[in-house]
Amino acid sequence: MSTCPIDNRVIRPIRFVAGQCQMLDQRLLPAEEVWHSYTTCQEVAEAIRTMVVRGAPAIGVAAAIGVWFGVRDIDTESSWEFYQELEKICAILLATRPTAVNLSWALERMKHFAESNLDRSVPELKIGLEYEALAITQEDEKINRQMGKHGEPLLADGARILTHCNAGALATAAYGTALGVIRAAVEAGKKISVIADETRPFLQGGRLTAWELQKDKIPVTLICDNMAGALMSKGEIDCVIVGADRIAANGDVANKIGTYTLAVLAKEHNIPFYVAAPISTIDLSLNDGSLIPIEQRDEREITHIKNIQLAPEGISVRNPAFDITPHRLVTAIITENGVVEDDYLTGLSQIIKPT
Amino acid sequence: MSTCPIDNRVIRPIRFVAGQCQMLDQRLLPAEEVWHSYTTCQEVAEAIRTMVVRGAPAIGVAAAIGVWFGVRDIDTESSWEFYQELEKICAILLATRPTAVNLSWALERMKHFAESNLDRSVPELKIGLEYEALAITQEDEKINRQMGKHGEPLLADGARILTHCNAGALATAAYGTALGVIRAAVEAGKKISVIADETRPFLQGGRLTAWELQKDKIPVTLICDNMAGALMSKGEIDCVIVGADRIAANGDVANKIGTYTLAVLAKEHNIPFYVAAPISTIDLSLNDGSLIPIEQRDEREITHIKNIQLAPEGISVRNPAFDITPHRLVTAIITENGVVEDDYLTGLSQIIKPT
Repeated sequence: MSTCPIDNRVIRPIRFVAGQCQMLDQRLLPAEEVWHSYTTCQEVAEAIRTMVVRGAPAIGVAAAIGVWFGVRDIDTESSWEFYQELEKICAILLATRPTAVNLSWALERMKHFAESNLDRSVPELKIGLEYEALAITQEDEKINRQMGKHGEPLLADGARILTHCNAGALATAAYGTALGVIRAAVEAGKKISVIADETRPFLQGGRLTAWELQKDKIPVTLICDNMAGALMSKGEIDCVIVGADRIAANGDVANKIGTYTLAVLAKEHNIPFYVAAPISTIDLSLNDGSLIPIEQRDEREITHIKNIQLAPEGISVRNPAFDITPHRLVTAIITENGVVEDDYLTGLSQIIKPT
Repeated sequence: MSTCPIDNRVIRPIRFVAGQCQMLDQRLLPAEEVWHSYTTCQEVAEAIRTMVVRGAPAIGVAAAIGVWFGVRDIDTESSWEFYQELEKICAILLATRPTAVNLSWALERMKHFAESNLDRSVPELKIGLEYEALAITQEDEKINRQMGKHGEPLLADGARILTHCNAGALATAAYGTALGVIRAAVEAGKKISVIADETRPFLQGGRLTAWELQKDKIPVTLICDNMAGALMSKGEIDCVIVGADRIAANGDVANKIGTYTLAVLAKEHNIPFYVAAPISTIDLSLNDGSLIPIEQRDEREITHIKNIQLAPEGISVRNPAFDITPHRLVTAIITENGVVEDDYLTGLSQIIKPT
């Protein structure tokens, strides 16, 4: 573990140093900027599970790196045995978090690469998978910048934009999804201000979104999750933009718990509700959102902050990490291939494979 | 300041011991049960301002006690001079918190008592005001039990009830308003379970509602504020019941920030939304909720918990303590004089003075 100042120009929560990967510990922000070094698959899996790294696209990137680290240590000359070991490594990483489909997307891509190159030697496969992991990381930033270009016309000059959780640089390789669209609008010269929900229990909004927007000098105001309705009723929010952890074929969106409430509030106040996510978030194998698995997390996330007790001992707690926003509440889904509105069933399947 | 165990049978956050008043420090619950002793008006005002005691009815009770303590020290033989000093004392107490009208209601009642007895000697006025403060305290519990009787028929056997903030024994002299209705339903033999919003930033739900319901062995499950929508969408909430800090003539309700969001969610899911409050909460002088002053509290309530930093240094914060729920979202208002539905403008003015 090493502590060093973060790159002040472009926020990248995952970086590479001499065959190691370093991740900014997002559990400790904003009070501390601590980087951990990882060299094994197991370490990366633990970092995903314990939310050192979080955010659907960043989880995908981290998983690909985990595969790369895992295959480095496979001791065989048989490409077929190598592939079987690779599958075990992917299973370890897949078990870390169930909701974000980007995780399995990245693992499938790594497996597919190996499968397509089984005629190669094991050393060549290892090098190829390293390149593939780095490509997934680099592509993620490009994807987000594309998403920003497609999405920013939806944001008016002067817009006051509510966001939830962190769908920013910290949730991706760089630039962010929802915050990427906001960054693109700012880069296009628009005056934008952001209202960030703190996002209990993990406080990604207060700790991460506020931190990265402040760093990029984009005006941001922090509120508690329960204040969004009051601000909307006073006409202080022009639109909502959030990320996604998985999008079903019909456009139903799994995202951080509390997203659904914002979508209902947006509808009540006739405010557009946008979702920004890479196509790797779209899961056409699921007809609707009811089929998306929802991760239930530890009750201690709610009952304690560090060692401070926020609720009585032994209290019953519910802690779903995500909820489902039905497509009827979603004004548009912004991807790197374009924006989908209205008929998501057709639109998503078309956009996933652009002509 | 003294530390001692709370009465385990009936929860009373304010108690009297030999001319002093003791208050349970609600900022320290549930981790610590600490009682502070008060003997002066200034001390009581500070306890209200800093939220040692909170909850609209309890603030009213505390204010009356503050008046009693204040007038004890008035050094005059002139009843008229005494009354002028009393008005200054009331002004100090009134300035502590702006939204809950029970505060000014209790102060007006104390002033009215003195005004009606200006023919008495100063020593007699002092004794009379002591009796009046004690009467306000005792009546509050009776009022809540009456409210419970009127409201409990609205709660079905087996109901899973969402509540926000703490409108319980800790927010009153005893028994509670919203939680009083729940207690009455339990006493009537109904199987009731409560879902408590934690209620950021002060966490009255997680720290206080969970604590007092657990003490009374009423099943309670704690959630973060942003989870209510998800639970409603899964059919896990049968009704919502909250307290109020001020109710305008048209039935618009000021209550803890986040209440409005719950009312919108309840409407979206066709779930009844009930408000339980004493008639001292109804302010017929205000035509609608837009006229109710909303207290803005310190940003540190959001950016820190004790000394733990939850947001970046220097971040902009909004911290309104209350919001306004328009009457169209309120299914019924439960008072000690009965239940008002639909036409609040007529109903509230009638119920405030029962025949």
